Amino acid sequence: MQTRTARLMDGTALARRVVEETSVRAAEITRRTGVTPCLATVLVGEDPASVTYVRMKRARCAKAGIDSRLVSLPAATTTAELVGTLRTLSQDPAVHGILLQHPVGPHIDERAAFEAIAPEKDVDGVTMSSFASMSFGRPGFASCTPGGIMRLLDAYDVELTGRRAVVVGRSAILGKPVGMLLLARDATVTYCHSRTADLAAAVREADVVVAAVGRPRLIRGEDIRPGAVVIDAGYNAGNVGDVDFDTARTRAGLITPVPGGVGPMTIAVLLEQTVDAASAQLGLATR
Amino acid sequence: MQTRTARLMDGTALARRVVEETSVRAAEITRRTGVTPCLATVLVGEDPASVTYVRMKRARCAKAGIDSRLVSLPAATTTAELVGTLRTLSQDPAVHGILLQHPVGPHIDERAAFEAIAPEKDVDGVTMSSFASMSFGRPGFASCTPGGIMRLLDAYDVELTGRRAVVVGRSAILGKPVGMLLLARDATVTYCHSRTADLAAAVREADVVVAAVGRPRLIRGEDIRPGAVVIDAGYNAGNVGDVDFDTARTRAGLITPVPGGVGPMTIAVLLEQTVDAASAQLGLATR
Repeated sequence: MQTRTARLMDGTALARRVVEETSVRAAEITRRTGVTPCLATVLVGEDPASVTYVRMKRARCAKAGIDSRLVSLPAATTTAELVGTLRTLSQDPAVHGILLQHPVGPHIDERAAFEAIAPEKDVDGVTMSSFASMSFGRPGFASCTPGGIMRLLDAYDVELTGRRAVVVGRSAILGKPVGMLLLARDATVTYCHSRTADLAAAVREADVVVAAVGRPRLIRGEDIRPGAVVIDAGYNAGNVGDVDFDTARTRAGLITPVPGGVGPMTIAVLLEQTVDAASAQLGLATR
Repeated sequence: MQTRTARLMDGTALARRVVEETSVRAAEITRRTGVTPCLATVLVGEDPASVTYVRMKRARCAKAGIDSRLVSLPAATTTAELVGTLRTLSQDPAVHGILLQHPVGPHIDERAAFEAIAPEKDVDGVTMSSFASMSFGRPGFASCTPGGIMRLLDAYDVELTGRRAVVVGRSAILGKPVGMLLLARDATVTYCHSRTADLAAAVREADVVVAAVGRPRLIRGEDIRPGAVVIDAGYNAGNVGDVDFDTARTRAGLITPVPGGVGPMTIAVLLEQTVDAASAQLGLATR
């Protein structure tokens, strides 16, 4: 039996290019208007992983010439207080994009909080309005990870029209929107999830697999169709993805490594959409 | 070979029950508040099929004790004028539900028109807000045909959890939302459409097929898995559905006839949601 080795989809390199281009655009906005694009990041509590993510995002903003404003709220913040904070930021003309760091704690109605973000500042693509825009092919911001996945697919010239795409996971900001974006590109899209009776059978049919469920090595390498494109958006302890990478790479045509695949694209799209938002709000031509 | 004959899913009978219950609720609202639930129907132009649909819907309203207001606009109405009309109706406290009869003519931005309908009056479930609500399992109105299909499935005790559902068609008010409603009920959902490479293969895997594409007999009976549930939301000339009924019924477990399956449910859900809207707007307890 012939053993193939899949080509790796280099999210780190693609993200670097996206961020470089974004930095140039940010500098140009600052030069032309005197206003620097600004992302407000709202953090509730002190979950160590969330603190780390927020620090990393702010560092990336700084490097790209984007201002960031950190709003740190105590863990005991109520839904009403959080909604109030997000509404104020939505109305603040100095803030162009808003990111609410997930998770916010079980006592908070996260959906109510997300919906307090004005759609034109929803650069993380978490509002129902953004979801509907992605679903209907209307102008609006993509959820960052789905947006990053589509950029990766395009960068590697993956044909989507008529191909079978299987999305494993149905979260509001990852599985559901990436399926809708794939459908908008004329893929035949199947949503699988925890209640799917025969996940392996569905994966075996897929020309494109998007794993977005957060369960280490849930998807077995031997179920990957030879030559398929494997996008692993899982991020589990120990840098393990949702796909059994070692086996999958012997069958796939293209595969994202974990780390270095989808992850870097998420933040690149966040920065890019922050600059898009600033550009639109400052009355400059959009891309 | 054994020939089975599928049980028919009687949409006419189920719709009658739904409308009867709705009539009782409408009368109770009128008795308690002095206000009769009111559906405003907006018709642009004089397309004969649209005129017939609107007349039929108004007759059903009258029979159910729901007032209807017809707003007939000339074919040359602009998007801005139509948006203005729909915004005015959205603010009119005497109107509880709004239906914009489709299609509105190619010179009108139909999406812009739909979005002028206030979500709380969107009893036809056409706004992006309603779509996102269906997708995320939030309170809101269903698109009427998808809502009617879910009622039919429930009335016949069709198990959805873990079953493979194949939706053929991806329109904004039928295919996309019915897929999201099936996903919310834990089905494994595949969206097929005009660009799907091998429709027959996808249909052959389906425990539940929803045909929602408007192409006569596109789905061949021999591709129906034995015992599958077949929902035909197609409505083509000559009362022909999207499924080849005669062959499909020899294989399916349950099947909707055309006419008398999905069609009657659409209008029943429209009436029911109009009463739901009136109830909420008049401050009465919702179901």
